[in-house]
Amino acid sequence: MHFSEPLPLQSGASLADYTLVYETYGSLNAERSNAVLVCHALNASHHVAGSYEGKPKSEGWWNNMVGPGKPLDTDRFFVIGVNNLGSCFGSTGPMHNNPATGKPYGASFPVVTVEDWVHAQARLADRLGIQKFAAVMGGSLGGMQALAWSMLYPTRIAHSLVIASTPKLSAQNIAFNDVARQAILTDPDYHDGDFYAHGVVPKRGLRVARMIGHITYLSDDDMAEKFGRDLRNAEYQFGYGVDFEIESYLRYQGDKFSEYFDANTYLLITKALDYFDPARAHQGDLSAALANTQAEFLVVSFTTDWRFAPERSREIVQALVNNQRHVTYAEIDAPHGHDAFLLDDARYMSVVRAYYDKVWRQLDVNAAVALGEAA
Amino acid sequence: MHFSEPLPLQSGASLADYTLVYETYGSLNAERSNAVLVCHALNASHHVAGSYEGKPKSEGWWNNMVGPGKPLDTDRFFVIGVNNLGSCFGSTGPMHNNPATGKPYGASFPVVTVEDWVHAQARLADRLGIQKFAAVMGGSLGGMQALAWSMLYPTRIAHSLVIASTPKLSAQNIAFNDVARQAILTDPDYHDGDFYAHGVVPKRGLRVARMIGHITYLSDDDMAEKFGRDLRNAEYQFGYGVDFEIESYLRYQGDKFSEYFDANTYLLITKALDYFDPARAHQGDLSAALANTQAEFLVVSFTTDWRFAPERSREIVQALVNNQRHVTYAEIDAPHGHDAFLLDDARYMSVVRAYYDKVWRQLDVNAAVALGEAA
Repeated sequence: MHFSEPLPLQSGASLADYTLVYETYGSLNAERSNAVLVCHALNASHHVAGSYEGKPKSEGWWNNMVGPGKPLDTDRFFVIGVNNLGSCFGSTGPMHNNPATGKPYGASFPVVTVEDWVHAQARLADRLGIQKFAAVMGGSLGGMQALAWSMLYPTRIAHSLVIASTPKLSAQNIAFNDVARQAILTDPDYHDGDFYAHGVVPKRGLRVARMIGHITYLSDDDMAEKFGRDLRNAEYQFGYGVDFEIESYLRYQGDKFSEYFDANTYLLITKALDYFDPARAHQGDLSAALANTQAEFLVVSFTTDWRFAPERSREIVQALVNNQRHVTYAEIDAPHGHDAFLLDDARYMSVVRAYYDKVWRQLDVNAAVALGEAA
Repeated sequence: MHFSEPLPLQSGASLADYTLVYETYGSLNAERSNAVLVCHALNASHHVAGSYEGKPKSEGWWNNMVGPGKPLDTDRFFVIGVNNLGSCFGSTGPMHNNPATGKPYGASFPVVTVEDWVHAQARLADRLGIQKFAAVMGGSLGGMQALAWSMLYPTRIAHSLVIASTPKLSAQNIAFNDVARQAILTDPDYHDGDFYAHGVVPKRGLRVARMIGHITYLSDDDMAEKFGRDLRNAEYQFGYGVDFEIESYLRYQGDKFSEYFDANTYLLITKALDYFDPARAHQGDLSAALANTQAEFLVVSFTTDWRFAPERSREIVQALVNNQRHVTYAEIDAPHGHDAFLLDDARYMSVVRAYYDKVWRQLDVNAAVALGEAA
């Protein structure tokens, strides 16, 4: 979807012209009331569910969650996945030409925030004729978007599903993000963000950035269980190649990531994470920040998530309770750390399924009331 | 101290010729029974205590712990600090010339292990005429050396003080070390370890390595307390300079470290950490590994240390208890994460002081018994 109305950004800059790439699943009902927006995290995209024809390995990143008969059931709901601005999977971002210069934006692409993304998503909803979402849902950075929706467009969202998220990053979270950024920014192939013109990619930096990130997505226990101190060979190698399987795994993840992800996008998105802090405009009072919300909430956290630990979700829950909002909270005892929000876990999936049953029943009741009023 | 007898290493390589730099504090008594060896961790040296003349800022890294009247009281004990092989603070390491080639070892310096260091330290003790240490003490990687001493030279150590340490690194510990190594190894200025010949230093890699390490030395809570989300300027900068104080702090730490630390040493020492696993030769049975120890032990951990958490110290304690060894264990409720072992904490310091009182009383009793036997 192309937009030619300028989008003012939180930084003071604005995007004159931009495109949002999106995918939809299921059908919008006649009342236009069954739309659910799914927001992506750092390295995902609009491709939430299903596979592309002839590409069985192209499964969407939340394919276990979204689809016919799945917890977010596309037989009931019209689901929209949208790629955010600044990303490298189709929507306008640093790899695209800046119409003002005719050259790729590179590092001059404006730093965008969670709130900027939400405003852009709201314009997409306008175009699609969706006045109010049955739900906005996301995990991690996606959960921040779901939370921001409830504050920025309180009348346009019935339910907010905030999974494995946080009301703001901690100093440690920011520290990890900044080390990752420094690895990219100091890679000689970064060329101040204009590496496209040099025909290179700052792969070394991206690779290290991803390795750091990946450690924070997994739990210590999960790593211990999956890899432990397993050796690639029978004996220590006494060199700097691969000794331990965990080294091999992380290097592979880093290599793979550096092949497809844009370095400027990595920088942008980690800044969006760092900047998210809705309580900031309210002297740090999250309850005040959430005072104007009207949605109902599902908040989910995972016990072994040390990136965004359960305590962070409980802050959100407490602030909502302080405002007497409807909030359901599930703390799932899952071993997989932050990544748990993407993985199958029977209890997690059943909590989300049950919540969407409630969302669905409310739509039915609303429809019946509307019919009754019409009659 | 120069050694011309070859030192066989665990890797199968050997060092033909090497020098160990050491410092001593206090006086060796007539019985040669009051010597305490203090072992250093990743980026420290033989300079444990005191300051050099005219350099008031040159305080030793454990100056709060070691000195006249301090918990390890140099009025009572003869304390030795030794710089380990492979380090960059004086003892033979990658920066030194390989006598076989006349050029710096660089990456060809053999990968050394905790056990190799202990054997080298034992030779130094031989030269100094110390048959048995009253105690061997260290924190973190230094604690591994204190533990290894109790296994490799059970009759030459009366007490082992193992602080903020672990019987082996976890997959997550290894992962952080490997990302740090990858940052160095992939820095174009690393030149396969021969950067000395190129007149450069892989500062970018060292800087990122140190930033990663530093995050793991501090606790989440401590970072939150010290830095939180404090901004350098009043508002977000919407760029990749410094926004948050934690970024400024970590970049400064990384810059400083990259000015003085040798990249090959960093690689070597992190491998020594990764490889330490005394239970490995006993099918993972730490109790079996510790079965031949004769020392008494003080084990100390810190509640907020997530690098080597209290659970890891408790494994050591349990294995010692299984062997019916004398072991004192203190779990200090300190906020400073792994770094706590270097910092002042009244409870921590008083535990160590009380333990050395016991060591001292035992020396007295032994001396009296010896006198009695002589009479």
